[in-house]
Amino acid sequence: MSNIITAQPGNFYAIGIGPGSSDLLTVRAVNIIESADIILSPQAEGANRSLALAAIEPYLQDQQVETINYQMKRDSQSTQERWDGVAQQVLEYCSAGKSVAMITLGDPLIFATTSYLLLGLAEGLDKGKIQVVPGISAFQTAASRFHDALTLQEDRLMLMSATDLAAVETALSNCETLVLYKAGGVINELLALLEKHELLAMARLVSCADQGNGELVVDDLSSFSPQRMSYMTTMIIHCGRRNWQSQSALQRR
Amino acid sequence: MSNIITAQPGNFYAIGIGPGSSDLLTVRAVNIIESADIILSPQAEGANRSLALAAIEPYLQDQQVETINYQMKRDSQSTQERWDGVAQQVLEYCSAGKSVAMITLGDPLIFATTSYLLLGLAEGLDKGKIQVVPGISAFQTAASRFHDALTLQEDRLMLMSATDLAAVETALSNCETLVLYKAGGVINELLALLEKHELLAMARLVSCADQGNGELVVDDLSSFSPQRMSYMTTMIIHCGRRNWQSQSALQRR
Repeated sequence: MSNIITAQPGNFYAIGIGPGSSDLLTVRAVNIIESADIILSPQAEGANRSLALAAIEPYLQDQQVETINYQMKRDSQSTQERWDGVAQQVLEYCSAGKSVAMITLGDPLIFATTSYLLLGLAEGLDKGKIQVVPGISAFQTAASRFHDALTLQEDRLMLMSATDLAAVETALSNCETLVLYKAGGVINELLALLEKHELLAMARLVSCADQGNGELVVDDLSSFSPQRMSYMTTMIIHCGRRNWQSQSALQRR
Repeated sequence: MSNIITAQPGNFYAIGIGPGSSDLLTVRAVNIIESADIILSPQAEGANRSLALAAIEPYLQDQQVETINYQMKRDSQSTQERWDGVAQQVLEYCSAGKSVAMITLGDPLIFATTSYLLLGLAEGLDKGKIQVVPGISAFQTAASRFHDALTLQEDRLMLMSATDLAAVETALSNCETLVLYKAGGVINELLALLEKHELLAMARLVSCADQGNGELVVDDLSSFSPQRMSYMTTMIIHCGRRNWQSQSALQRR
């Protein structure tokens, strides 16, 4: 179990690097980043610096680092086309025997652009030459600030984007813990919705957790005045608790 | 951002160590484990070895390691009482100036016994002396085996225990991606449920991922013959996809 996994020639690695702290990468992520020939670092258009790149800075020596610019656009076709172009470049590097690691904030399979790149690579690269390394997702960092369980016993956890408020309202009654990503842009609407459902005191919020500075932690939204906040805002709403069902109750169903 | 966090005297750390591979701990988890005075390692009654302890073995030197035995019992009261007892012991260590780290497989706030210990500590220890370090949860490791997105765009991810089949059936229509923990014990019932909903081909399963040996990965459950499998089995069901809603559609709601 202590075998060290390092970047191999001709292989591609999708690396989750966690929220943005250099010490919240996994050891495996560090080992692969340190040994890769080429690091791809995605950067949304308009962002003035790459958080992801800053997080891995202590692990960079002579790797070739390439920034992949992309637009934050709610358009599936143009998004996939952009990443298919990146996939072609990755395939060229891999067939030339290079090891390529794409870094992603959070986890590469949870609301991450890396998923589009993996789709684009699926046809051109053997599955055995692709490795995904999971990373700490923002909801885990957010929850860690409050010290209490996201889920216990029979609780259901729902994780979704806050952007579709009707879907958010429905979700409130379909789970015990609701985690909303991208809560920053619709904060006023969310507060109104929580007030309507008498859930303000059960809702918490973290912005830019473990990203070095600008962290905002709100323990109880009932006394919170909305302010301009980052896109990277995670809300955790405890809608209820679902304890263990007794075995006989389970069998009756 | 490259400040190193180490275990401090009188502090308690709830450390998620990920699925069981030594290289899937975060750097922060390793730093705290290496610098802690006392490591608490939970072990369910009847388990013949501690996976968690094996995972951190490379990081152990002269720390005092204590095994915390507990029963896997679906009884809230006796569970909390057991952990309140452990909390008393932790408080004694902390007031004697020791640093104490409790390790947990996965993430300490996602279906983890550590949550009961944190509840037990909340009254006796300053919040500032408690730190939770998130860890890679089993669903992330499971998903990493398949290389495709858990969620994209407006997808809703639901994470729950498989034990209550009626709740599982309801969840199938309330999310796009359903992740079931503890799927091993009810595998036949789950397969029948998926067949009924024509979702067998959209369901995948991983048992004991990244735990060194005995890993079972099933990419498509439509051609799977159930077998005796570990309690630690995670099923991922892709019930659908929910693309970006256009802004005008959002406003209409």
